[in-house]
Amino acid sequence: MVDYPFMMKMSVIFRDLDVLGHVNHVVYLTYMETARTSFFGKIMRLDDFAQLPLILAEVNCQYVAPAYLGDDIIVGLWVSRFGIKSFDLSYELVGRGKKHGERTVARAKTVLVSYDYEKGGTAPVPPLFKERVTQLQSGWVYEG
Amino acid sequence: MVDYPFMMKMSVIFRDLDVLGHVNHVVYLTYMETARTSFFGKIMRLDDFAQLPLILAEVNCQYVAPAYLGDDIIVGLWVSRFGIKSFDLSYELVGRGKKHGERTVARAKTVLVSYDYEKGGTAPVPPLFKERVTQLQSGWVYEG
Amino acid sequence: MVDYPFMMKMSVIFRDLDVLGHVNHVVYLTYMETARTSFFGKIMRLDDFAQLPLILAEVNCQYVAPAYLGDDIIVGLWVSRFGIKSFDLSYELVGRGKKHGERTVARAKTVLVSYDYEKGGTAPVPPLFKERVTQLQSGWVYEG
Amino acid sequence: MVDYPFMMKMSVIFRDLDVLGHVNHVVYLTYMETARTSFFGKIMRLDDFAQLPLILAEVNCQYVAPAYLGDDIIVGLWVSRFGIKSFDLSYELVGRGKKHGERTVARAKTVLVSYDYEKGGTAPVPPLFKERVTQLQSGWVYEG
Repeated sequence: MVDYPFMMKMSVIFRDLDVLGHVNHVVYLTYMETARTSFFGKIMRLDDFAQLPLILAEVNCQYVAPAYLGDDIIVGLWVSRFGIKSFDLSYELVGRGKKHGERTVARAKTVLVSYDYEKGGTAPVPPLFKERVTQLQSGWVYEG
Repeated sequence: MVDYPFMMKMSVIFRDLDVLGHVNHVVYLTYMETARTSFFGKIMRLDDFAQLPLILAEVNCQYVAPAYLGDDIIVGLWVSRFGIKSFDLSYELVGRGKKHGERTVARAKTVLVSYDYEKGGTAPVPPLFKERVTQLQSGWVYEG
Repeated sequence: MVDYPFMMKMSVIFRDLDVLGHVNHVVYLTYMETARTSFFGKIMRLDDFAQLPLILAEVNCQYVAPAYLGDDIIVGLWVSRFGIKSFDLSYELVGRGKKHGERTVARAKTVLVSYDYEKGGTAPVPPLFKERVTQLQSGWVYEG
Repeated sequence: MVDYPFMMKMSVIFRDLDVLGHVNHVVYLTYMETARTSFFGKIMRLDDFAQLPLILAEVNCQYVAPAYLGDDIIVGLWVSRFGIKSFDLSYELVGRGKKHGERTVARAKTVLVSYDYEKGGTAPVPPLFKERVTQLQSGWVYEG
């Protein structure tokens, strides 16, 4: 049974597939974006993603197994590094369906940079964000 | 409270939006495709959409109101016409969210043509499909 | 040889396809949106689509033939009706490729409504837009 | 002036943007996929991407600058490593437009694994592919 500080479940839809019959590799990043948006919203009690001034600086995604129509995708995510002006989000994507069972389909990491749009430059990670994440993740042990 | 012979609920995701800040008009058709795929699967006890040999011949969609991030979309659908070799699916898309309440966001219709891929031509609508739809929809009254 | 008052050529990309091996029906509307955006930009000498305050009220699309990877898509479009506060854009989508030759893949129409975002209501179609379209399309004869 | 062993030019379309007004980060991977598909087709004289049995095992993308509507995107790519059963493709994405000039918008790398679908396991990189790539890239010097 998968378990993470923050989890979001979504379903593979027909349009997510490509000619090869499984979820197009690009769509995994949209699954992650969907979970990340929701994560930021819940942590910061926001209704609107755009209010958190972050720039996505880098994505790394390792594709472990194909995902199919009929699968649910559980995106687990957690902050795996806090820097002064940036932090890392790590992800595990788990596919779950009648036909293919439960298995990890991808592991990923994104680097997010805090940005001050008024001053036009990088900015410290908001202390409130760091505080709430730390609280949420206290007691969690991460592997892999 | 919305109610249809077949309903499917999905959530607006960040990537569904465009620059104008609401769900891109094209995405409504993907919502409908997602519901249609699920509808065919349930009616015909299929795991795989591709097994039902249908060609989408026409789409008509009326956009009634914008949909936003934070909304759920309920797609209600029903067969609104049975022909010999084709049938119509009608849809109502209802947006539901804290900020914008519950309201119809689109009404649509698609024409689907039954096709025999082996013979390479149109074919009668499968009697089993017609029978099960008729059973599902008996007693329903449609307006609008 | 296809010819329209306004034409835009684009190429089918791998991601436009779905499991069935041809362009997903939803993507045709994105092809039309791409051409429409460019058309408005050229007619109104705009850099930015968002500056023309229009609401897409209705789409009707008839799917004539599949489109494939390797095809170019030529979108021809023209204003087929001018109302006081709305107008219709008509489209013909032509696929062209080595393997499948040149053939119409879809015909479509969209209803666009002029909108005043400040006053929050429909508004007359901008006279300059109507004038330039009329000039562009003078001498054209439309069939079908 | 950008120059690579293989280059492909595409245009940013309206649907590539998200609420933030620039190209959604996920779409960069679709730009890369589009160029990769074309690259494989040209190198191997294929009409059909699916004929080259490769699995995408990993993506790494660094986002350098935003891309906008009105930009062309030039994707330059080259094989940056050959292994026994896998190889790396490196990418540089350059945006070019009237408003924002010419600048690198992303740098990326994908790991591709050669796969034998009949035997169900990894397989050596096809010698013909390696030979043609080596020929194409001979004389090129890569930086960064």
